[in-house]
Amino acid sequence: MNILPPNIQWAATTSLERGPVVAGTNAGTARNAIGVHAAGFAIYQGLAAATGALPEGHRPNLHDTGPSIDIGPFPQWTQAGKIVSLDPWGHRVAEVFGEARARGLDIRPSIAVTNGRLRMAEISDSMRRGRLKPDGDILTRSGDICVTKIAIEPVWWLPGIAERLAVTEQTLREALFRCTDGMYPALITRLDRKAFLPPIGGSSVYLFGDTRKLGQPAVNIACRIHDECSGSDVFGSDICTCRPYLALGVEEAICMAQRGGIGIVVYNRKEGRALGEVVKLLVYNVRARSLLGDRAEMYFDCTEQVAGVQDMRFQALSVDVLHWLGVNRVERWISMSNLKSDALVAAGIKIVNQVAIPDEIIPAHAHVEISAKQASGYFSAIN
Amino acid sequence: MNILPPNIQWAATTSLERGPVVAGTNAGTARNAIGVHAAGFAIYQGLAAATGALPEGHRPNLHDTGPSIDIGPFPQWTQAGKIVSLDPWGHRVAEVFGEARARGLDIRPSIAVTNGRLRMAEISDSMRRGRLKPDGDILTRSGDICVTKIAIEPVWWLPGIAERLAVTEQTLREALFRCTDGMYPALITRLDRKAFLPPIGGSSVYLFGDTRKLGQPAVNIACRIHDECSGSDVFGSDICTCRPYLALGVEEAICMAQRGGIGIVVYNRKEGRALGEVVKLLVYNVRARSLLGDRAEMYFDCTEQVAGVQDMRFQALSVDVLHWLGVNRVERWISMSNLKSDALVAAGIKIVNQVAIPDEIIPAHAHVEISAKQASGYFSAIN
Repeated sequence: MNILPPNIQWAATTSLERGPVVAGTNAGTARNAIGVHAAGFAIYQGLAAATGALPEGHRPNLHDTGPSIDIGPFPQWTQAGKIVSLDPWGHRVAEVFGEARARGLDIRPSIAVTNGRLRMAEISDSMRRGRLKPDGDILTRSGDICVTKIAIEPVWWLPGIAERLAVTEQTLREALFRCTDGMYPALITRLDRKAFLPPIGGSSVYLFGDTRKLGQPAVNIACRIHDECSGSDVFGSDICTCRPYLALGVEEAICMAQRGGIGIVVYNRKEGRALGEVVKLLVYNVRARSLLGDRAEMYFDCTEQVAGVQDMRFQALSVDVLHWLGVNRVERWISMSNLKSDALVAAGIKIVNQVAIPDEIIPAHAHVEISAKQASGYFSAIN
Repeated sequence: MNILPPNIQWAATTSLERGPVVAGTNAGTARNAIGVHAAGFAIYQGLAAATGALPEGHRPNLHDTGPSIDIGPFPQWTQAGKIVSLDPWGHRVAEVFGEARARGLDIRPSIAVTNGRLRMAEISDSMRRGRLKPDGDILTRSGDICVTKIAIEPVWWLPGIAERLAVTEQTLREALFRCTDGMYPALITRLDRKAFLPPIGGSSVYLFGDTRKLGQPAVNIACRIHDECSGSDVFGSDICTCRPYLALGVEEAICMAQRGGIGIVVYNRKEGRALGEVVKLLVYNVRARSLLGDRAEMYFDCTEQVAGVQDMRFQALSVDVLHWLGVNRVERWISMSNLKSDALVAAGIKIVNQVAIPDEIIPAHAHVEISAKQASGYFSAIN
């Protein structure tokens, strides 16, 4: 069937004027984006197709998959340049593009929203110490934490990404093509396709409290935007402060929800400052073997020696999720990173209080990291 | 400079006969593989190049980055078909391909090996209960766990992957190309390039005990191969048994190391059975909304409704890391998954004892998952 690709007017006033991102594996002639959904797992889809496990032409049945709570639309969704790295309608495609799906367009969700319960040892510990008290709703007596869980795949609007990074769209497209050994020639041949689903990790978002208050100007927000560090987040490595800071973010999110506000914890899959874990461990070896000892002033140099840069996370893109959630002001910002807070300020989101990591939860070997970051401009409650 | 690409003889007897995988961003005419290192983060490298943050032509300085312990070579490295999804020489490129690097070939490590210390609440808890005792070496009195940490990027030998999955190389290449919206045309145009660095998540490996015993026939191994589940592994979600089982794997690994054996925990970035987190949360909603209640017999059907398949992890590939570590026999196998144990048996690795998850560490809402898996063939100590 020869269906013309729908036009995308990014940030248009309504979902129908905006138009759907058509990037399903079976989009056919209606495709208007580069790449596929779950792009970071697309290679596995290839294996499943090769072996016949994935039936040819499969399209997801979206019955009963829709979001467990309403999110938006918020004014930020339709303000040019506010959201460029995710599709604000991505969780609602079955609803708002149902007619186009019925006509045969392979439109798929890029965002999923559900409810869940968490339990974290650090939170149970805070309850024992009396720092957190159960309320039976957000935090139960047994230590269960009630949350809304959201998974977000990146959907990049290339002109918007280019503008955010202050480069031309052409420069961006060429660099993406060149640095990947020519992944997606469409980046340089199909300039008409401006939406791109990059094969990188996405984000998870955990919301705490009454999510109906999202977007209300008076609601207080506590927020941590956390970048993945599997070694610490999962295995409790003692060389950095990642998991302790994440747990502090969850604790602050619970507290804010209990006080009638909303807690937001964002988990971005950007392992090792988006340099990947191999580079990260190579750098650990350089630091451990330095004749001068593992010193704060060499912390960033060691990374640059191996990777060519200190950091590739591009925090300028990490604010989009807050725009998507209708956030204009963060009452408690659980981070010391100047890169992250600068990104919020540049995006017009106000930070009222910045919460530094308390000394007592810094692991023994992580002081080198913290000192290096403070010297390079990190916020510190002491200074 | 016009350098000819070196020939790769996969599984050849020595590293020099095997030849280097040349896939650095600046490999130029010497390139002999499709894709780049840290492929799952290559898009970020593109952003860094576009903005000028990454200097053009940067090559990693590998001084002092080499592995903290010796691993291999083991006989499995040079047996045809044993290892097809990673480069067994990937951690030693600076050493074994130093001469080629000096001649200008952009050869980079695909594996990094370092030492570290972990701390996990579940392990500290087991110490308090007396199930684990500190030995001052592998497990300290304060609960620090001493490990060797390894990060592995996927490097696929396409003929070997095809053979493992029982498809032709041509079918594999075409399916990978088709299912990704045409990522890497070289997959179908450059049949001479048989090594591929796919843009998917890699693996982390944690080794416990005296790693000099790796490859010794008499050494006892405890092993868990764990597939990422961020919601449980990091945040303690109560809907599945992932983190409890991972923690059990770490505990068993410590015990085995304390008894003079080696513990191995592998962490594969295959979120949501390699379907991605968006699909996973969409499926949670289908299960929660079923009029029949969230029942074990519907567990896999709900996934198939959305994703077209129940699972895309292809456990047949997950055994390569054990071949790489010289493992022929696993004394304690910490998993109930028949998919995983079948893969080991097919690979000729003997499982002596299979360790099921104890009932008392299954979270409240995770019984649906466990029941569904048992009905579909999971190992259970009860049956």
